[in-house]
Amino acid sequence: MANLPVNKTAHPFDKARFEALLNRRFFYAPAFEIYGGVAGLYDYGPPGSSLQSNIIAEWRRHFIVEEHMLEVDTTVMTPAPVFETSGHVARFADWMVKDLKTGEVLRADHLVGNVLEARLAGDKEARGLAAQPAKEDDKKKKKKDKAKAAPVKLSDEQVVEYETILAQLDNYSGPELGALCKKHNITNPDTGNEVSEPQQFNLMFASSIGPTGQHPGFLRPETAQGHFLNFSRLLEFNNGRVPFASAQIGRSFRNEISPRAGLLRVREFTMAEIEHFVDPEDKRHERFADVRAVALDLLDRDTQAAGSTRVTRMTIGDAVDKGVVANETLGYFLARINQFLLKIGIDPARLRFRQHMANEMAHYATDCWDAEIQNSYGWTECVGCADRAAYDLSVHSAKTGHPLVVRQALKEPIVTEKLVAEFNKRTFGQTFGKDSAVIQTLVGGLDEALLAKLQGELAQGSTTVTSSDGREFKLTPDLLTIEKKTFKQSIREFTPNVIEPSFGLGRILYVLLEHSFWSREQDVERGVLSLPAVVAPTKVLIVPLSAKTEFDPLVREVSTKLRKAGVFSRVDDSNTSIGKRYARNDELGTPYGLTLDFASVQNRTMTLRERDTTGQLIGSIDEVIDTVIELVSGSIDWAEACRRLPAYDGVQAVE
Amino acid sequence: MANLPVNKTAHPFDKARFEALLNRRFFYAPAFEIYGGVAGLYDYGPPGSSLQSNIIAEWRRHFIVEEHMLEVDTTVMTPAPVFETSGHVARFADWMVKDLKTGEVLRADHLVGNVLEARLAGDKEARGLAAQPAKEDDKKKKKKDKAKAAPVKLSDEQVVEYETILAQLDNYSGPELGALCKKHNITNPDTGNEVSEPQQFNLMFASSIGPTGQHPGFLRPETAQGHFLNFSRLLEFNNGRVPFASAQIGRSFRNEISPRAGLLRVREFTMAEIEHFVDPEDKRHERFADVRAVALDLLDRDTQAAGSTRVTRMTIGDAVDKGVVANETLGYFLARINQFLLKIGIDPARLRFRQHMANEMAHYATDCWDAEIQNSYGWTECVGCADRAAYDLSVHSAKTGHPLVVRQALKEPIVTEKLVAEFNKRTFGQTFGKDSAVIQTLVGGLDEALLAKLQGELAQGSTTVTSSDGREFKLTPDLLTIEKKTFKQSIREFTPNVIEPSFGLGRILYVLLEHSFWSREQDVERGVLSLPAVVAPTKVLIVPLSAKTEFDPLVREVSTKLRKAGVFSRVDDSNTSIGKRYARNDELGTPYGLTLDFASVQNRTMTLRERDTTGQLIGSIDEVIDTVIELVSGSIDWAEACRRLPAYDGVQAVE
Repeated sequence: MANLPVNKTAHPFDKARFEALLNRRFFYAPAFEIYGGVAGLYDYGPPGSSLQSNIIAEWRRHFIVEEHMLEVDTTVMTPAPVFETSGHVARFADWMVKDLKTGEVLRADHLVGNVLEARLAGDKEARGLAAQPAKEDDKKKKKKDKAKAAPVKLSDEQVVEYETILAQLDNYSGPELGALCKKHNITNPDTGNEVSEPQQFNLMFASSIGPTGQHPGFLRPETAQGHFLNFSRLLEFNNGRVPFASAQIGRSFRNEISPRAGLLRVREFTMAEIEHFVDPEDKRHERFADVRAVALDLLDRDTQAAGSTRVTRMTIGDAVDKGVVANETLGYFLARINQFLLKIGIDPARLRFRQHMANEMAHYATDCWDAEIQNSYGWTECVGCADRAAYDLSVHSAKTGHPLVVRQALKEPIVTEKLVAEFNKRTFGQTFGKDSAVIQTLVGGLDEALLAKLQGELAQGSTTVTSSDGREFKLTPDLLTIEKKTFKQSIREFTPNVIEPSFGLGRILYVLLEHSFWSREQDVERGVLSLPAVVAPTKVLIVPLSAKTEFDPLVREVSTKLRKAGVFSRVDDSNTSIGKRYARNDELGTPYGLTLDFASVQNRTMTLRERDTTGQLIGSIDEVIDTVIELVSGSIDWAEACRRLPAYDGVQAVE
Repeated sequence: MANLPVNKTAHPFDKARFEALLNRRFFYAPAFEIYGGVAGLYDYGPPGSSLQSNIIAEWRRHFIVEEHMLEVDTTVMTPAPVFETSGHVARFADWMVKDLKTGEVLRADHLVGNVLEARLAGDKEARGLAAQPAKEDDKKKKKKDKAKAAPVKLSDEQVVEYETILAQLDNYSGPELGALCKKHNITNPDTGNEVSEPQQFNLMFASSIGPTGQHPGFLRPETAQGHFLNFSRLLEFNNGRVPFASAQIGRSFRNEISPRAGLLRVREFTMAEIEHFVDPEDKRHERFADVRAVALDLLDRDTQAAGSTRVTRMTIGDAVDKGVVANETLGYFLARINQFLLKIGIDPARLRFRQHMANEMAHYATDCWDAEIQNSYGWTECVGCADRAAYDLSVHSAKTGHPLVVRQALKEPIVTEKLVAEFNKRTFGQTFGKDSAVIQTLVGGLDEALLAKLQGELAQGSTTVTSSDGREFKLTPDLLTIEKKTFKQSIREFTPNVIEPSFGLGRILYVLLEHSFWSREQDVERGVLSLPAVVAPTKVLIVPLSAKTEFDPLVREVSTKLRKAGVFSRVDDSNTSIGKRYARNDELGTPYGLTLDFASVQNRTMTLRERDTTGQLIGSIDEVIDTVIELVSGSIDWAEACRRLPAYDGVQAVE
């Protein structure tokens, strides 16, 4: 009875109701709200902060602790030369246009996309076609940015042209976007005004370090550079061995042009990034066997190129074996990312791994997969996982002259034989005078095959070489000899490759809230957040019947015992009914509730309530505490708790 | 035998050796080192990051969880109007001077202080006096900034004048510092060049939000404003009741003029701040009784005003009773701060609470105490604890028009009686015409006593009032009546006061490392960091005799069992002796070590080593795991472990 099935899909997802709940319970709110707010900046309130810190704690356990990663904490403020080297100063930019009358700034690709989508929607309406259910995602995705759709019929050619443009929107350069605006008469949908030529806008926040104004700096747009710059120290800390991974959880900043879409596109956010440094010639992973059987929904680049978004369910073992995923290490991380997201409560049916198209990736990357999670805005990239090859370490090393390499003692020295030319310096100089050096360099630069040819010809008596300016020189055995020599190499030096899983924690937090939200079948106004105990802001709510002091000793006893067991509880002794207090905590995602009433004082019994089923059990205070500790730790589930303790149908059950 | 006493003070603190250890083990390092570094920016490596995250976790338990605080996480990027209101744009500044030839920038107060201290030191040398031991702290404090002392004798008058200047260095304005430089011929000690007039330099990093450049922003120099701006939401979350506290752990930024002193003065740092909102008329604290007996070393402002730095040891109960500390809530936090600092390993003999002098505090603050911790730079403020009164909420409320107040239903309405004048509007208008309003305002503004006087005179027949421009008006009973009326107030509205404990986590981390460092009596080169298990980066080191695969199953078994118990361990199977591996982990502060050797494989025994004593015990693998889990959790100490398990004197003991 306490374990009745729950229908969480009785009501369709209602975004307005969902957002009202998050606002009412202060999960997050626009920052500087009383000053009018600033787009793209949000503050987390108590439940949002706790949820975030629990996600981070689980991330730390799942990745840093279990994988023995090396955590770093590097600065946000970064001198400009670092981002000049990394390419961010030149390329970390979006194209923007200005409304020529109001000066309002819009992202050029968003503007073109929104206007053309609106025209296509208007055309459908004019043709009397309803929006197709299959396209619902795409529609919702741009909801907030959407231009208004007027029911105007387009020519068939226009429809095809618009659809073609939309399909490759990510590929246009700024000038091309400007040309599209001109050609298709695209104006600011809010005002109808013309827009300017697109200009590039760098997304990094700029500042200046020190009092003289001579040291420009940027706020980092990602934490990665801090790992790369400390590579030598990290390698030394790891006793000079690869592979190893560094990890960092920290704030990053992007000065988005016109952020909308709530927590999904913000100007300041918390990320968790891993940089796994690996031998470029051996990207196997020693624990790959542990994840081989993990099945993922994969959307590879060939499928996308064929115009489909149909995922293929495949074990990561098969995906690597078949070459769908480039290597074991990349595959290992995709599986571990999947495990992490499911553990914190992401709906597996709305999680997919999408491979980047060749033209989406940075030129140096060898493979890249995004964990995308479906939500009311569409499919959102929440984790990126890229094989960045040796790019980052190479460019910083080239710029600073500091070697960022691994020097590995070879177990067996590599012995190689090759042909080497040795010159008789005296006779050579006498014969060729000031041309000697030119000819020696020429011969020294020949490859093995050409040297073998020369060697053969010399054995025949003579040979000739031709300089770059076309002069021929005759060489004879008295001038030089060409012979096999043995070389022994005992150290191998290489620049490691980097595999980078990068998590946007704010995005994950937001989609997790969407996936957790539902309304009670019998009352759509009663929202619930079914957050798993591992991330729930509060694990246990303690509810004394009233704020009367006679309950105080029991409240203290229960909360102290829970705290000693590491279970985070809160007391709600506010002046409302128990039912209302539970409803409030259903909205906060608190999985368990303990009620203390007069029976508790007299008989030392306590009831235990589960959030989703609202089922209640009863037992002695100590039994119930033991049970709830096990529930929170995940060592038993609610069904098991129902087997251990009798159901309770007393007054508190009336909610 | 395994529990021999340890002499940690055999060798005096050696800063060079200490810094070499921190650098070698990558606790932290200058950020952007391979780019030449930037003053005041540091990156934390793996042990520094873990230590920091353990300090934060303990802070969260000690304050947020135990005190049921409301955690928030607000943005770093802040629009300029917020800091205009808070006063930071106008006043969060230091005075700087420029070297007139090199352009080098110096903090004006530091320059004057350093040069005069150097001259006084030179004078002492010239007079043949040794530096006085009692002044050692002050000397060390400025060590790095120090100008070179030339042995030049000063006149007695000059000595007195310099000492007077130094004693009130914090009180000079910029122009006064400029005048001092001129009068005493103070130049840049590094170059001998003259310096410019002092200019004010705002310490906030400036940036610009959004693409138009029209929205100036600053990086927050403290997290506090984020709490204040969300006050209404937090109050609502707390069901409208005070007192409550919000808490935030996050990054802040200060563009220091010329940061030196390592982690103690940096441009980017992590803080933990609490804002406790309390009824200004009732600053009692409900758990004050729990801390009454906590004794603190207090240095109050009267003692300092009398020229002494002698602390008084006093329970916080006495301190509040005697009025040394302003109120219970402030006292409660001082005691809790003390408990926290001792728990993480700060040496109680080098911790004091210093009260701010009246002229040190912001004008609105009512009391302020700093937890100062002694280290090689002197006494350093690591935690500030201020009663900021209603300043912050008042200014933001006044600026935005958003009420930041508590509305409290009074248990019993306050009934007041007061005299009120009622005017006969018709006759009043007929008598005074356009002066009516002036006279009515005049009478309405009179206080109770004057109204009573008027009432008496009216009863006699007539009275007169005089307007501000000196005209007299005669009033008679037909024009107005003055009578007692009853007023009932059922809601009390007030702006809460704020008590703010503010922790500089980087400073605490640094002084903790200094307090934890010592060298083995028998070998000064063997440094140890005696970090308590609660904050140690790694709790347990697992040391297999070698990297041979036969130890792998045991290593995995032990590390899995520890992980399930929540104990963070690391395996060191590097190719060096067990002694060297332990020595490395003594430097990392790892409190316990487990050695797996051939006996472990054959007999399932394992040895347990304690870092400080280097004592070793032996037992079955399961016994030893149970013991080390209890040691790490703090439920038993090493002496108890020695009673439980026999001592071990085998080969591993040879280090």
